[in-house]
Amino acid sequence: VQVGRFAIIVHGGAGARGAADPDRNTAGCLAAARAGHAILQAGGTALDAVQAAAIALEDDPVFNAGTGAALNADGDVEHDALLMDGATLRAGGVGALRGFQNPIVVARAVLDGSPHCLLAGEGAARFARAAGIVPCADPRALITDNARRRWEEERAKGFPGLRGASGGTIGAVALDRHGHVAAATSTGGLTGKHPGRIGDTPLLGAGTYADDASGAASATGHGEAILTLLLTKHACDRIAAGAGAQGAVDSALSELGRVHGHAGLICISAKGELGIAFNTERMARAWIDANGREGVGFGA
Amino acid sequence: VQVGRFAIIVHGGAGARGAADPDRNTAGCLAAARAGHAILQAGGTALDAVQAAAIALEDDPVFNAGTGAALNADGDVEHDALLMDGATLRAGGVGALRGFQNPIVVARAVLDGSPHCLLAGEGAARFARAAGIVPCADPRALITDNARRRWEEERAKGFPGLRGASGGTIGAVALDRHGHVAAATSTGGLTGKHPGRIGDTPLLGAGTYADDASGAASATGHGEAILTLLLTKHACDRIAAGAGAQGAVDSALSELGRVHGHAGLICISAKGELGIAFNTERMARAWIDANGREGVGFGA
Repeated sequence: VQVGRFAIIVHGGAGARGAADPDRNTAGCLAAARAGHAILQAGGTALDAVQAAAIALEDDPVFNAGTGAALNADGDVEHDALLMDGATLRAGGVGALRGFQNPIVVARAVLDGSPHCLLAGEGAARFARAAGIVPCADPRALITDNARRRWEEERAKGFPGLRGASGGTIGAVALDRHGHVAAATSTGGLTGKHPGRIGDTPLLGAGTYADDASGAASATGHGEAILTLLLTKHACDRIAAGAGAQGAVDSALSELGRVHGHAGLICISAKGELGIAFNTERMARAWIDANGREGVGFGA
Repeated sequence: VQVGRFAIIVHGGAGARGAADPDRNTAGCLAAARAGHAILQAGGTALDAVQAAAIALEDDPVFNAGTGAALNADGDVEHDALLMDGATLRAGGVGALRGFQNPIVVARAVLDGSPHCLLAGEGAARFARAAGIVPCADPRALITDNARRRWEEERAKGFPGLRGASGGTIGAVALDRHGHVAAATSTGGLTGKHPGRIGDTPLLGAGTYADDASGAASATGHGEAILTLLLTKHACDRIAAGAGAQGAVDSALSELGRVHGHAGLICISAKGELGIAFNTERMARAWIDANGREGVGFGA
């Protein structure tokens, strides 16, 4: 085990405060941060750490990812997820994937076993099955009562949230003892989205980016705004140009004014600095910094 | 009709020289540039101009887009395409779309009629049908003898080209009399790609980007390299920082050294300068510049 600095930060989605329970959200984030931190502490890679954190958040029904994901216009779950390794610049992602409990595990299989970066729809599901990942026996197990109720409410109003921030997307960024960074993001996307819609989450430089030469970032919020302005790449470019992690995410957020967008970002620089910024009412997050200090937040 | 400068540049894909016929490739590019230029001349928008150019290139069986697209591992055509409007920063894209003669027309329908930027797979096809776009009566009409022969040859060798440049992707960028820029890119992707694979083409900032504050760019080549480094966003960022269009694409190409990638880019600045760069053996292209001069190229 090497002795470099290591740290992790996770988010549970930017959005309106709504009925979200601050304590449940921050507790879920902290548990995920701890799961990733244990891997870093033991000398594991940032890539494995962000994957472990993402699995914990996907499995927590409070968040819009994995179990508890938002439902599309048909009332089905379609997941987007991506992992990126800053050491190699390799990435694996899935878009509009149906029927798997942990889309981030399928994304990892794409990273490890495919020459491609992004697989979508039935092709992605076929790749997952060929990689030995077992699909859900019943995909309805991914649907929580809350997600169903929200879908019914929003459908009755014609899905007004389609141009807004979804809330609840999850993400994690980490720096490991070996000096490598990684990022992971996973989501069910917008309630009422068109089947086959892919948001910012699985697109490099949009929802997720990692580069040892700068840092790693994960975004959440209005996907179309984030992917139009490439907010995570913007944040990493700012670090490469000399900004700190907080300055980098502040700069990314200021870009959003061009499209009147709402979003949040977390970021870790390759030096181990943490950055957090959002212009929504809340973005649940938790971190364990390079000094081992834990922290959580929900509102501004 | 206003009197501002206007210009267009198109490409027919970067790749190995192989059996590609320089005259057929450059003639197809020039015909497409003229189709777009006629729209600009008449006072039409850059968005309509790049769409017209892309349709001409999709319909020319010489290019890896529309009719003549490369075949995936199953021997089927799956198209990726995206249009972006620099005036509004709005975009529409499709990934792994099956069964439509002109994917760029479906992408335009996404831009005009969806709150989303990217639709994939069967969800994208469903959107297209609902928008009134008629699918191919027989999708096999998209498959040319050349594409089939290449698929058979590469399959016999285990699809060695999956980590290389595909060749033949098409793209167009234009500046209109009103001072607006736009970009369009369309492709069949890599021969032997996994079903559901989405490359750089329909991802903003990867294969395609347009922003009136800087310019518009379209990339071609090894998709995973282009999307990892966000090459078209990089080029536009260089212009925003003061570079000319040629300096911007040269800078983007130099980024490729980080992943040993092969690609090419075309670019137009909001001032009407043209930029062309590639590190492959050839990139067919044609342009009509702001002085009305036509030009074509194939090799370096």
